[in-house]
Amino acid sequence: MADSALTSLNTATVKQQWNLRQCIDGCVRHGIQGIAPWRDILHAMGVDEAARAIKDSGLRVTGLCRGGMFPGATPAQRQANLDDNRKAVDEAVALNAECLVLVVGGLPDGSKDIAAARGQVRDGIAYLLEYARSCNMPLAIEPLHPMYAADRACVNTMAHANDLCDELGPGLGIAVDVYHLWWDPDLEQQIKRAGRERLLAFHVCDWLVPTQDLLLDRGMMGDGIIDIPLIRSWMEKQGYHGLIEVEIFSAGNWWKREADEVLKVMKQRIREAV
Amino acid sequence: MADSALTSLNTATVKQQWNLRQCIDGCVRHGIQGIAPWRDILHAMGVDEAARAIKDSGLRVTGLCRGGMFPGATPAQRQANLDDNRKAVDEAVALNAECLVLVVGGLPDGSKDIAAARGQVRDGIAYLLEYARSCNMPLAIEPLHPMYAADRACVNTMAHANDLCDELGPGLGIAVDVYHLWWDPDLEQQIKRAGRERLLAFHVCDWLVPTQDLLLDRGMMGDGIIDIPLIRSWMEKQGYHGLIEVEIFSAGNWWKREADEVLKVMKQRIREAV
Repeated sequence: MADSALTSLNTATVKQQWNLRQCIDGCVRHGIQGIAPWRDILHAMGVDEAARAIKDSGLRVTGLCRGGMFPGATPAQRQANLDDNRKAVDEAVALNAECLVLVVGGLPDGSKDIAAARGQVRDGIAYLLEYARSCNMPLAIEPLHPMYAADRACVNTMAHANDLCDELGPGLGIAVDVYHLWWDPDLEQQIKRAGRERLLAFHVCDWLVPTQDLLLDRGMMGDGIIDIPLIRSWMEKQGYHGLIEVEIFSAGNWWKREADEVLKVMKQRIREAV
Repeated sequence: MADSALTSLNTATVKQQWNLRQCIDGCVRHGIQGIAPWRDILHAMGVDEAARAIKDSGLRVTGLCRGGMFPGATPAQRQANLDDNRKAVDEAVALNAECLVLVVGGLPDGSKDIAAARGQVRDGIAYLLEYARSCNMPLAIEPLHPMYAADRACVNTMAHANDLCDELGPGLGIAVDVYHLWWDPDLEQQIKRAGRERLLAFHVCDWLVPTQDLLLDRGMMGDGIIDIPLIRSWMEKQGYHGLIEVEIFSAGNWWKREADEVLKVMKQRIREAV
């Protein structure tokens, strides 16, 4: 089982309880080595102040959540998305993040053309990658579960993410989240195909049975049916030794608890169920 | 756009409104050529009586829903599942169904081993296939959306279904449901790989944005974001000319309407959005 010191807190896990300052302090208090902030709470604190506070804390930033959302119904919309993505790269650099996580976006409003959306994603990443390379900021495509293909991300498998990495070249990698990928019979093979260079982040939570909500009913590691240690072993076989980032959207359970309790349970479950 | 006479009613679409007798009469009244009953309402009517009524009505039976659910925590449980599947084959034969649809099942209680569940599915189909062949009843694997991998079906892509067909041989095919498969970047290629022989059924409904419930919030064709005509064109390019089966689980909308209205809208949407 994993070493709980190797945990990173994705701030979404306590998003109803804590602002970024509280998340930073909480991680330090609980001996959690990493943090992955979302941009909304980053902006609320202010990027400069957050960068200083995180630096002072000694925390690693396992990723900034998130860039992406490339598709748009019009060229102007797509350009606005790209402009915002450049800002996200700048913020990731300011935080000394290990990567900028990309949730690539789904269908533009009114569209049923998922192939076209995928083309826009490809083009958007290609454009952003040039800038990100110039800043030495790795981009991590996070393939999302196919149930988010329409409205959040039309890259839904490691195979598709690997294809994009093959096509677009260095500086681009993958954030592997067990929640999104556990079901894929091709997962072991595609983690192998990705290899050490592309495996930029490892996110964990659990798939609950039954799942009550498409978005906000993710489980704490060990409470669901994902064989997380098995997937972790595939990551480590490729040489992944980054932190293990806990990202749990849970409106009905974990968002209602004391955040300190959530972090305590998280660490325990990293030891027992990851 | 499709010919609305080529519609088949999956009885789940009006499951809160009509029993099987009413479904049969409704199809005849609305000029719908096919029906696909679920086993629960089939048993409620009685298999012999249903078989007679369907024969008298002149309806085609595009599939019996459903066999499958192969995995089990114990050998005894798996054998009970297989016994029930043999009965389902017999019922499909009695109805002169064009296939028995297989929803293959997910993880056995307490298991996190999806590879093992997939092995049990493979073994279960292999066993059942021998019997189904002896009765000339085609088995149609229905790959379900990955959001059902844990609790309903651990075959979640056409590629996986095609692999099983390759391995297990004749008598086994695939039921293509746009709701489950629309997101797959490999879909066109895998429909081509399946080819005419394996394409045993074509199910339609639509993916709503947002989707409120994992199970019971499917949309009427045209109300969501699936490019159904495109997928239909891929089916027809392979020579599929079977009926188009409408299967909509919709607790909040279509299950609350008059069933005659549902059938009317269905036919209209087959013309306009399929």
